[in-house]
Amino acid sequence: MSEAGGSNAIAGNFPVVTVIGAGQLARMMQPPAVALGIRLRVVAERDDDAAALAVADVRSGAADDAAAILAAARGTAVVTFDHEHVPADVLAAVTQEGVPVEPPPAALVHAQDKLVMRRRLAEFGAAMPAWTTARDVERVRAFGHEHGWPVVVKTPRGGYDGKGVALVDEDELDGLSDWFARFPEGLLAEERVDFVRELAVLVARSPSGQAAAWPVVETRQVDGVCETVVAPAPGLDEDLAAAATALAIRIAGELGVTGVMAVEGFETADGRFLVNELAMRPHNSGHWTIEGSVTSQFEQHLRAVLDLPLGDPSPRDRWCVMVNVLGGRYEDLYRSYLHVMAHDPGVKVHLYGKGVRPGRKIGHVTGYGDDLDAVMARVRHAALFIQGDIDG
Amino acid sequence: MSEAGGSNAIAGNFPVVTVIGAGQLARMMQPPAVALGIRLRVVAERDDDAAALAVADVRSGAADDAAAILAAARGTAVVTFDHEHVPADVLAAVTQEGVPVEPPPAALVHAQDKLVMRRRLAEFGAAMPAWTTARDVERVRAFGHEHGWPVVVKTPRGGYDGKGVALVDEDELDGLSDWFARFPEGLLAEERVDFVRELAVLVARSPSGQAAAWPVVETRQVDGVCETVVAPAPGLDEDLAAAATALAIRIAGELGVTGVMAVEGFETADGRFLVNELAMRPHNSGHWTIEGSVTSQFEQHLRAVLDLPLGDPSPRDRWCVMVNVLGGRYEDLYRSYLHVMAHDPGVKVHLYGKGVRPGRKIGHVTGYGDDLDAVMARVRHAALFIQGDIDG
Repeated sequence: MSEAGGSNAIAGNFPVVTVIGAGQLARMMQPPAVALGIRLRVVAERDDDAAALAVADVRSGAADDAAAILAAARGTAVVTFDHEHVPADVLAAVTQEGVPVEPPPAALVHAQDKLVMRRRLAEFGAAMPAWTTARDVERVRAFGHEHGWPVVVKTPRGGYDGKGVALVDEDELDGLSDWFARFPEGLLAEERVDFVRELAVLVARSPSGQAAAWPVVETRQVDGVCETVVAPAPGLDEDLAAAATALAIRIAGELGVTGVMAVEGFETADGRFLVNELAMRPHNSGHWTIEGSVTSQFEQHLRAVLDLPLGDPSPRDRWCVMVNVLGGRYEDLYRSYLHVMAHDPGVKVHLYGKGVRPGRKIGHVTGYGDDLDAVMARVRHAALFIQGDIDG
Repeated sequence: MSEAGGSNAIAGNFPVVTVIGAGQLARMMQPPAVALGIRLRVVAERDDDAAALAVADVRSGAADDAAAILAAARGTAVVTFDHEHVPADVLAAVTQEGVPVEPPPAALVHAQDKLVMRRRLAEFGAAMPAWTTARDVERVRAFGHEHGWPVVVKTPRGGYDGKGVALVDEDELDGLSDWFARFPEGLLAEERVDFVRELAVLVARSPSGQAAAWPVVETRQVDGVCETVVAPAPGLDEDLAAAATALAIRIAGELGVTGVMAVEGFETADGRFLVNELAMRPHNSGHWTIEGSVTSQFEQHLRAVLDLPLGDPSPRDRWCVMVNVLGGRYEDLYRSYLHVMAHDPGVKVHLYGKGVRPGRKIGHVTGYGDDLDAVMARVRHAALFIQGDIDG
């Protein structure tokens, strides 16, 4: 059922996009792919991965299985991914086969390695927290004496959702020995920014160089995990919004990013935007765009990696709010639909087909309207009910 | 990859919906199913049917293959369909197996047989064109003498998109002999209504009896095929809109309809709404709801057949326009994306993955905004370009 080609006249012309990884981000590419007539081929580690349940063409393989990735990629229009943990040599093999990888490995390394990212952004003067490469405890200690405690220490690779990040006081430096052993190239030490709030800028860029940006959003994290996104960021100074957007588009251009990129950062009390992290794929801070923007980040990612003209990223409503649903007390998420849908016929619930584990991102809820407080209350109620934190 | 159950904790709780038929209507159920975490199992006649390319769980079988339908239905939450041409005995076998069929066969017959529909609507006084059951040419002639020529003659079963409908003048009555031979129970003869325009009312109803209606739309047909839908119908009298909506909801209730139902009808010069046709499934007149309404007809259909609370059918914009894309001069539809997307980053193009045949519905384009003329011009440009009727 899932092979390209066949008797359908349309099949020969329409591209197949290979997606490495089959989590919720790959899953959420499927609705716009269906609309556009584009076919997704996902490379899934497990048969019941979120995206494997949602697309017609599923290949088995891990992101570091070069043979499986190469076999999946062959004959398709482009390879992309729903996470950054794809080894460079695997992507190089795909490129050598003549299949474009978007974003290209030379760009992706900046989302894979935080030290590489910091050095590159420093070269063109992007505003960032003070940072250093620390190859031993003494360097962290010296940095802390200069910039204050605690110091934010990050592993250069492999972190996500608060993992691979530690807040370290001077008497806790011994706790870093494992990380120093695992990362002989050094750890990233950063000042702890006394920020007003966290912002994210989501942009898309195509291989031809066309770029588009969604409105800057405010993100609220709990325990290092994104909890709430408000679009646009309430009360954000227009000049700061313009500067942050221009910086994100510049980063995409300087680094050669294609597809969707999220620039997460801090708004400081003195009105600056400091770059914290880069993600080169559709991002949790952009889930609101599914209902909230003329072109969702998932549609835009497909258009960008296929080098199609980009869509309009304008917001459709005054306010749009997204709240994540984390695994909680309920195993039977479906039954909660009866309450949530009856309580509010206007909220949009997204569940990813994933098993419930405490703290795991299993879905999200989006709402929109003219009154931010009202929208926030509606969306939070639905999300908290589904995860079992409230029962009425 | 596609079996229900398995190791994912969520799978046991979330329903599988069996959809008989794998055309574009089944295909367009997949995006909301993905969002809601619901799985579709489509029963497809061909491997490259529009929906077979878009879902993970595809079974082979024709709509009249009772064994195939029964095997697909077994163990799923509900059976529905994307066309009305499913024989009653096949659906009865599914019901006997304990799997609900929504809409139920007793309701569906009114969308399958126009004579049954006319008789039933007459029982509760729904406004309709004058009509009669004609078992021979003489009955048509008498009806024409009473109501004027030409007479609209329809086969009771099997018609769609202008097929099975004839405009017959008195000197053309001999041309009906084939139809009389095929339908010994009689043909439906109707007065030709001198209508101002055509309207459609789209409603949804759940087995629990909850109902919801989208705004009444204007539909424009060319050669019996829907070409353009404008939501809401411009300048429609509020009382007439309310009456047409109330009638559609009453029809759904009286007939026991579940899921989405379209009531197509005529607006007359003297301000009446006359029922022409019923469709019991998502309908071409409702494709605008994908972007244009808080809850699309495809999401609503899934919610309704699963007896979940219905979503908000409110429009999101002042105007929404949908224009069908018919197979035309171009085989290579994908290349037209380069022009259409570059020309207008705000129109939403939907292509169904179907091969191009002249006149075949292969996609549609939707746009929305405050200025109806501007939206209409944008959407028409995109649709006409894709089907090859204009080249710039």
